[in-house]
Amino acid sequence: MAETVGLLGGGVIGAGWAARFALNGVDVRVYDPAPGAAAGVAEVLANARHAYERLTLAPLPQEGTVELVASIEEAVEGASLVQESAPERLELKQELLAAADRAMPADALLCSSTSGLRPSDLQRGLERPERLVVAHPFNPVYLLPLVELCAGGQTAPETVGRAAAAYRAVGMRPLVVRTEVDGFIADRLLEALWREALWLVADGVATVEEIDDAIRFGAGLRWAVMGTFLTYRIAGGEAGMRHFMAQFGPALAWPWSKLTDVPELTDELVDRIARQSDEQADGRSIRELERVRDDALVGILQALRAQGEGAGAELAAWERTLLGGASLDDEGPLPVHRARVPADWVDYNGHVHESRYLQLFADATDGLLGRLGLDAAHLEAGGSYFTVETHLSHLRQLEAGDRVHVTTQVLDADEKRLHLFHTLYRDGEADPLATAEQMHLHVDTRAGRAAPADGPVLQAAVRLRDAHAVLPRPERAGRTVGKR
Amino acid sequence: MAETVGLLGGGVIGAGWAARFALNGVDVRVYDPAPGAAAGVAEVLANARHAYERLTLAPLPQEGTVELVASIEEAVEGASLVQESAPERLELKQELLAAADRAMPADALLCSSTSGLRPSDLQRGLERPERLVVAHPFNPVYLLPLVELCAGGQTAPETVGRAAAAYRAVGMRPLVVRTEVDGFIADRLLEALWREALWLVADGVATVEEIDDAIRFGAGLRWAVMGTFLTYRIAGGEAGMRHFMAQFGPALAWPWSKLTDVPELTDELVDRIARQSDEQADGRSIRELERVRDDALVGILQALRAQGEGAGAELAAWERTLLGGASLDDEGPLPVHRARVPADWVDYNGHVHESRYLQLFADATDGLLGRLGLDAAHLEAGGSYFTVETHLSHLRQLEAGDRVHVTTQVLDADEKRLHLFHTLYRDGEADPLATAEQMHLHVDTRAGRAAPADGPVLQAAVRLRDAHAVLPRPERAGRTVGKR
Repeated sequence: MAETVGLLGGGVIGAGWAARFALNGVDVRVYDPAPGAAAGVAEVLANARHAYERLTLAPLPQEGTVELVASIEEAVEGASLVQESAPERLELKQELLAAADRAMPADALLCSSTSGLRPSDLQRGLERPERLVVAHPFNPVYLLPLVELCAGGQTAPETVGRAAAAYRAVGMRPLVVRTEVDGFIADRLLEALWREALWLVADGVATVEEIDDAIRFGAGLRWAVMGTFLTYRIAGGEAGMRHFMAQFGPALAWPWSKLTDVPELTDELVDRIARQSDEQADGRSIRELERVRDDALVGILQALRAQGEGAGAELAAWERTLLGGASLDDEGPLPVHRARVPADWVDYNGHVHESRYLQLFADATDGLLGRLGLDAAHLEAGGSYFTVETHLSHLRQLEAGDRVHVTTQVLDADEKRLHLFHTLYRDGEADPLATAEQMHLHVDTRAGRAAPADGPVLQAAVRLRDAHAVLPRPERAGRTVGKR
Repeated sequence: MAETVGLLGGGVIGAGWAARFALNGVDVRVYDPAPGAAAGVAEVLANARHAYERLTLAPLPQEGTVELVASIEEAVEGASLVQESAPERLELKQELLAAADRAMPADALLCSSTSGLRPSDLQRGLERPERLVVAHPFNPVYLLPLVELCAGGQTAPETVGRAAAAYRAVGMRPLVVRTEVDGFIADRLLEALWREALWLVADGVATVEEIDDAIRFGAGLRWAVMGTFLTYRIAGGEAGMRHFMAQFGPALAWPWSKLTDVPELTDELVDRIARQSDEQADGRSIRELERVRDDALVGILQALRAQGEGAGAELAAWERTLLGGASLDDEGPLPVHRARVPADWVDYNGHVHESRYLQLFADATDGLLGRLGLDAAHLEAGGSYFTVETHLSHLRQLEAGDRVHVTTQVLDADEKRLHLFHTLYRDGEADPLATAEQMHLHVDTRAGRAAPADGPVLQAAVRLRDAHAVLPRPERAGRTVGKR
């Protein structure tokens, strides 16, 4: 991994690079003469920290330093990678790159964030043009993994490989653009969509909000999972890509858009697309691809619901309509908690993080306390239960999306203590996933110490203890950790 | 809500409609003379059930019936909504719609799924053209909420409102296309991108997989949250949309794509876009919009990680690299984890949620495993440790903002087990806040079962066990929950 990077430009993209590198433990020096650059970089860095706090449970490295410096020379001195993110003006970029090239270490990489200028133009006149490569990121740079790498005519082949490794080390996904073209791959696609969007506004067909809605409630959700070709392969059904091309190809020539130059669907082109599409599908059937797509869409919709955004807000609204009148069965003490395992509970191993099991059991305790009558008034009066000890046993694994429930047995209850045994099940299964034995102490939260419970909460707890006295004692109650 | 719908066409889109309606409790009759239509509908319905099982915890209504019928008349009889989803051939659709129009109830809605034909052409010659409206959905119809509604010249205004209500009732998001144009809004955008993608393949610039990757690892992730205009408003920074247009507008005229007809950025057009963009932002600052975007992106990336797809697989790979790390050199209980307690760990009592204590201890275990050399290569080879038991003791309370650290003592280690004792301290204090005794089992994650550790990880664990054998056994080790 790069140890120090020098950034030329601290705007939206430059600041995003600063965040991407610093949060991955790389020291950063930024040169940007614009007034307010330091404040802008600090704000983007704050956003990025906020995002990373929730992005991963893995231990992040010690954050790199981010220093605003007064010259190009200071920014690039001793850097192993220099990233230029200036406005899209060729002469400006050429000047910055030339100054960096003269001052930076001979073996350092010189990378440009340009979204469309050709690397062959950028490297013209450099002393060491062979170490320049375009590395085009996407906003927000600290979250979106894509970085397009494009070599110019004078770029050394090993430069591309070294750059790919450097970006991979900070969690990115390098995509090598094998042919040097204006706009590379992604921006040619984005630009085509954007031009059409501008026509729709110019012609008064739709507003910018309607156009955005036409994306984010529909195809945009798919694009987070699959690009256009794999999506259309699925749309073609089992008959595959060739069938899709035959069915929808003619529409290309229809006057649907302002775009006049249409590629001819020659047999050769259809063959090429069908062959490449087969390679991409890699033996997966349409039915398998549909499952992959649907599972991802479900996760995305749930993620958006948690944020109350876009299609997630629609999902929440629909769910509210489904909830008309369904009531929880509140006969008997069990079960006390139902939940669905959200995607963000999964850790880097692909498993639900162990602390989430305890979260489910804590929610179950809350559910039980609610049934005991521990309400807002009781809390207001300073009475509450604190957990003092927990013994967790992990028996089988949870998966994201699982519907689960917890049942709770009251092992003991008196005015000071509440001794519970929780069992977590996947709905419809008899074997438990995990158990938790817990001791809760009644406290006076105002005095900050243990204090006896009284009144209806204590009465309800004792009643439940007596009712549960006839149940068999759970096999795992009273365990210690260790070999037996 | 519609009580019965008649579907004309049971292909990918028709079957998707069948699933959307049936899973929302609406009875469905499908007419499709193609051989295999019944099997295709059943398969899509199975996919949709699988997706809905995980989509929501809300109680779904009793599933509607789905019946394949032998004639148009049987399909539409008594239906309150008829949805035509035949191939995109005008004459074919006109024939089907006319037959339905004659046989269906007078007050029922007649809707076409066409992705681009004009409703004025579709309703020509109908007996009741006023109840026809285009209702264009997106695949998979049962998951994507968008449905574009477009009226023809003879469509009654109330038809659009009634159709919007009918689709809203089954969880969809109607977008009224106010101007009748070929391709409506979404498909004009999709078609523009698709044409450019075809040029990239035709010119040999990129393969279909590279093109898809250029979307799904970058802009596609954003499009699930925000359309192009709001995305670009953010890219423009605090200076807003007008600034963005000034900065990136010129690129429209660059030869980045095969599209020759470019809208001129007149003052009037820039004004219109800037004004509509202000309306869309609805008073939210760029900083607020960035947070909305980032929160949603974090959720989307986590959802994709849970599926192991696209950018989620990249996230998982990055997290594995974060696990490499520090060396094993300390005597005595190791300080293996440092953290600062974030504000969102506080629960409704104003205290740090108990599951966060376990999260800190789990991070400490990760820190220790990193020191033992459990790195990306070890994980890649399928070796990992799973927690099987934890005994937590809560002694004093954490507060938001506390700087804390965890020390860890290895109580025992052999090829199967790793028995740890963690202690959590507030920095600078001698009295612990909490302790955790944990038993971890070495597993082969590929085989999904316990398997002996070997090599350097086992050697390092045993070395540490022997080094720690001289330390006093922690007072709280070996405890059970309960009265003593």
